[in-house]
Amino acid sequence: MKIGILGTGVVGQTLAGRLSGLGHEVIVGTRDVSATLANTKPTPYGLPPYSVWQKDHPAVKLGTFAEAAAHGEMLLNCTSGHASLDALKAAGERHLNGKVLIDVANPLDFSKGFPPFLTVCNTDSLGEQIQRTFPQVKVVKTLNTTNAMVMVNPSLVPGEHNLFLSGNDDGAKDSVRKLLRAMGWGDSTIIDLGDISTARGTEQLLPLWVRLYAKFQNPMFNFHVVSGASSQTR
Amino acid sequence: MKIGILGTGVVGQTLAGRLSGLGHEVIVGTRDVSATLANTKPTPYGLPPYSVWQKDHPAVKLGTFAEAAAHGEMLLNCTSGHASLDALKAAGERHLNGKVLIDVANPLDFSKGFPPFLTVCNTDSLGEQIQRTFPQVKVVKTLNTTNAMVMVNPSLVPGEHNLFLSGNDDGAKDSVRKLLRAMGWGDSTIIDLGDISTARGTEQLLPLWVRLYAKFQNPMFNFHVVSGASSQTR
Repeated sequence: MKIGILGTGVVGQTLAGRLSGLGHEVIVGTRDVSATLANTKPTPYGLPPYSVWQKDHPAVKLGTFAEAAAHGEMLLNCTSGHASLDALKAAGERHLNGKVLIDVANPLDFSKGFPPFLTVCNTDSLGEQIQRTFPQVKVVKTLNTTNAMVMVNPSLVPGEHNLFLSGNDDGAKDSVRKLLRAMGWGDSTIIDLGDISTARGTEQLLPLWVRLYAKFQNPMFNFHVVSGASSQTR
Repeated sequence: MKIGILGTGVVGQTLAGRLSGLGHEVIVGTRDVSATLANTKPTPYGLPPYSVWQKDHPAVKLGTFAEAAAHGEMLLNCTSGHASLDALKAAGERHLNGKVLIDVANPLDFSKGFPPFLTVCNTDSLGEQIQRTFPQVKVVKTLNTTNAMVMVNPSLVPGEHNLFLSGNDDGAKDSVRKLLRAMGWGDSTIIDLGDISTARGTEQLLPLWVRLYAKFQNPMFNFHVVSGASSQTR
């Protein structure tokens, strides 16, 4: 499948590399291609910049937001949450409409230091903002509650643990499940919470996530919803 | 130990019954004792009102917020989150100061229907509000991320799952751990997140909790933080 990924950070790189490895044709979109390629500074977590990462992933192409969105039959928003709406507008509504958009972003603002705060929460969510702004896009919020390495390789965290799905379109959620399954997420590990407003719940998991990360000094963890009703993951 | 519990709802009843059963001397505090005893309406979840519950729990005494607070060497705030500060003020700062207060409340407002919203979140929390309002009280936020039945009997949910601790006073957290241990929470199941500001993380877990409850139609579940770093609960 042709996939467009918006965002060149660690999440975009990691998903691009994994999906390309699974045989998908991936274009990663950025605001300014030359600036992205000219940037040789490591990322905040000490990982290589996109220009270095790309040398090891020649099958993944880099383009503008609009080029990536036009290319993709399915799209992934891996931009920083505070920049997502602008990135999607730059991608162009006509390149988004009718498509499934997996929204991986979290509206976290680190500008005031740690812990970050949410720029939208409680009675709204970034997932809903994107869905409202682009009503003809099939927004599915998922993957945003775990680290990028775990997103693409859930077995890095042992035992049972979960992903959540939020979105208004059941068909879109089915196609997202298929992509998640290919990355290693068994059907029983994916909890469909309901419509896109349930993204409020998963985005607001981040304030706990960042505190656990600070405590463990290690991002390789995830949440398991343990149910007493059936003694199985629900 | 003498324990004062503020709040006569399901959470207050369940914790009072359990702690009384463990041999503690429990007084439950309410705003208006006669009104609480005169109320014969079942609770919103179909459970019996306090007046009926009390007949099965003769060892638990009912008093005013001030009487319960004055009695308790350790206190539990089991009021509705939006009423907690008023209840604590009614209890009287002099009856609270120097004591450990376990804050079980969540600042959820159901007045606009489902899903409820948080009356405080993101850059503040109810736990912090209580700590700021009563600086000489040792506030420890815990138990607020799971159902009352699970709080007092964690084995109702099979396998490993967690509680979180937030608070500024390590000695207070140690005494809370001891109480939790007596109710069945093994030391390895309790994750100390840090100071009281980390209550933002656990209170903001509620928007996800209520959606999971709506999906499962059953409150007997809990969260397990699964860590890949040691293949153990952290």
